[in-house]
Amino acid sequence: MFFLNSLQLTGKGNPRCTAAACDLLLLGLMLLSHTERTLAKDNAKAVWKGKGSTANLKEIMTGRCFNYIGTINPNAGNKDCSKLWEAFLRAFSSKDPCNVTQEDYKPFLDLADHDIPANQSIFWSQSKGLIFQYSDITEKVMPLESTLIGSMTDNLNWCGKLSSPGPNFEACPEWKDCKNNSISSFWKAASENYAKKAHGEVTVMLNGSARDNAFRKNSIFREIELGKLDNKHVTFIHLWIMDNIDGPDKESCGVGSVAELETILKEKKIKYSCKDNYRPVRMLQCVGKSDHQSCKLGTEPKV
Amino acid sequence: MFFLNSLQLTGKGNPRCTAAACDLLLLGLMLLSHTERTLAKDNAKAVWKGKGSTANLKEIMTGRCFNYIGTINPNAGNKDCSKLWEAFLRAFSSKDPCNVTQEDYKPFLDLADHDIPANQSIFWSQSKGLIFQYSDITEKVMPLESTLIGSMTDNLNWCGKLSSPGPNFEACPEWKDCKNNSISSFWKAASENYAKKAHGEVTVMLNGSARDNAFRKNSIFREIELGKLDNKHVTFIHLWIMDNIDGPDKESCGVGSVAELETILKEKKIKYSCKDNYRPVRMLQCVGKSDHQSCKLGTEPKV
Repeated sequence: MFFLNSLQLTGKGNPRCTAAACDLLLLGLMLLSHTERTLAKDNAKAVWKGKGSTANLKEIMTGRCFNYIGTINPNAGNKDCSKLWEAFLRAFSSKDPCNVTQEDYKPFLDLADHDIPANQSIFWSQSKGLIFQYSDITEKVMPLESTLIGSMTDNLNWCGKLSSPGPNFEACPEWKDCKNNSISSFWKAASENYAKKAHGEVTVMLNGSARDNAFRKNSIFREIELGKLDNKHVTFIHLWIMDNIDGPDKESCGVGSVAELETILKEKKIKYSCKDNYRPVRMLQCVGKSDHQSCKLGTEPKV
Repeated sequence: MFFLNSLQLTGKGNPRCTAAACDLLLLGLMLLSHTERTLAKDNAKAVWKGKGSTANLKEIMTGRCFNYIGTINPNAGNKDCSKLWEAFLRAFSSKDPCNVTQEDYKPFLDLADHDIPANQSIFWSQSKGLIFQYSDITEKVMPLESTLIGSMTDNLNWCGKLSSPGPNFEACPEWKDCKNNSISSFWKAASENYAKKAHGEVTVMLNGSARDNAFRKNSIFREIELGKLDNKHVTFIHLWIMDNIDGPDKESCGVGSVAELETILKEKKIKYSCKDNYRPVRMLQCVGKSDHQSCKLGTEPKV
């Protein structure tokens, strides 16, 4: 920095260089200074403990895109998978990974967007695996992770760095390291976009055995998605409170934070029902635990 | 063809051209003749009624490869996804789609191969969807379609044509149109390769409601895989005979073609057990049919 400071007065007004030479010198110095500053910033933040971007991020994401529109959901329409990747990359490339906003992902979200069929929106908190299994088996619901946007990005990791373009494969901040990090901003933006599109009957699956509350504070469902649901577009909400097979049965319909959620839905004037351990999902939990007492198949008459 | 026939005598021994010019002319005529012949062959077979190769086949397959080794099964080891695609393409590119052999796929299979963990091999016939769901949920088994080889190709379609390299996106023969077609040869080769690697306890899931027999003649399991299982590598076989929830209960353990299979296993001196409607899988069938009588959850004491 001494070198730069000692030359700070060099410029167009300085009699020691011609106008053209001065322009070049100034430009060179500005670039040098910028590079130094960004390197210093990168270094200062090179202490990220989170794992770096997923290896082959581009190939995985474009491949998932082609696979999605070609074999999983051709109803998503014509999409240019290369353009989608470019728009996604631009959101965080050459940026401080703690300074990526939800707005930065808008071009990607707009390009990748497609309709969610009525009655197929499903929101979850602390029950991710179960939702995906239920979605795959029944094909009755389409969680965010089953849309093009979610399927291109699910289970991947990414961030950039100020000093160079492209993904940083070495290290990234973790979700909680900073507010506007490249991954949390993405999932917030994608979740908001997904919730805005919900219409008809909507499902919410929460975990009644969760260590925190089922309707957890700071969850994306509570903080982002719920606020976007209104009784103009959403005609009914099915709440499913699923305990783990082995318990504990910490919260249920009408109890604890679930009761809080129910109050909010009443205030929003959205009709709803609440079911503890909704049977089709309980069946799914029983696949891996079929010897459990609560998983016995009975032959009692139909209720 | 008249043009070619009338010039057939043109050659090195013909006094009307110099040696060098004759060589060139001959080469040109040979190329022309080859192109005509292959085009004629292609045209003769351009009546395929099967759908053509899946659009973006290369991008989908290489993307699935990167996704598999990066996020699904890193234990598959280092694989060069571009080389895998090239080896796969070479098996059928520029060939009559009815003249592709199992042997043609060997380079691809060798490159993509990885270990199957002991006790995780599972064979199926007429119960594909159920196997995949069970595999995804329990992660206790690894069917062919969950290996790198199977996941790169599952649900895709491909063939080539004699007259030009690359996939034919217009039309392909169907499975039964000819014996050595590019897809059936692939699945036979991949199934044989998969069966050879089975070791420890092995599972076989058959459909007890199948229109044909559960242990169907001409099925890949019966014709290809079963022959590769021996009591040196396979210590036990679990047979699961799953009826559809709504029936019919056409075949069961000890009955019909299942009894035939049991006899073969006895002859091969492989120990086995047979279960009708194995409960964990029945639970899975109940997810979408939880109101069905046979899907009621009881509270009776554990048996």
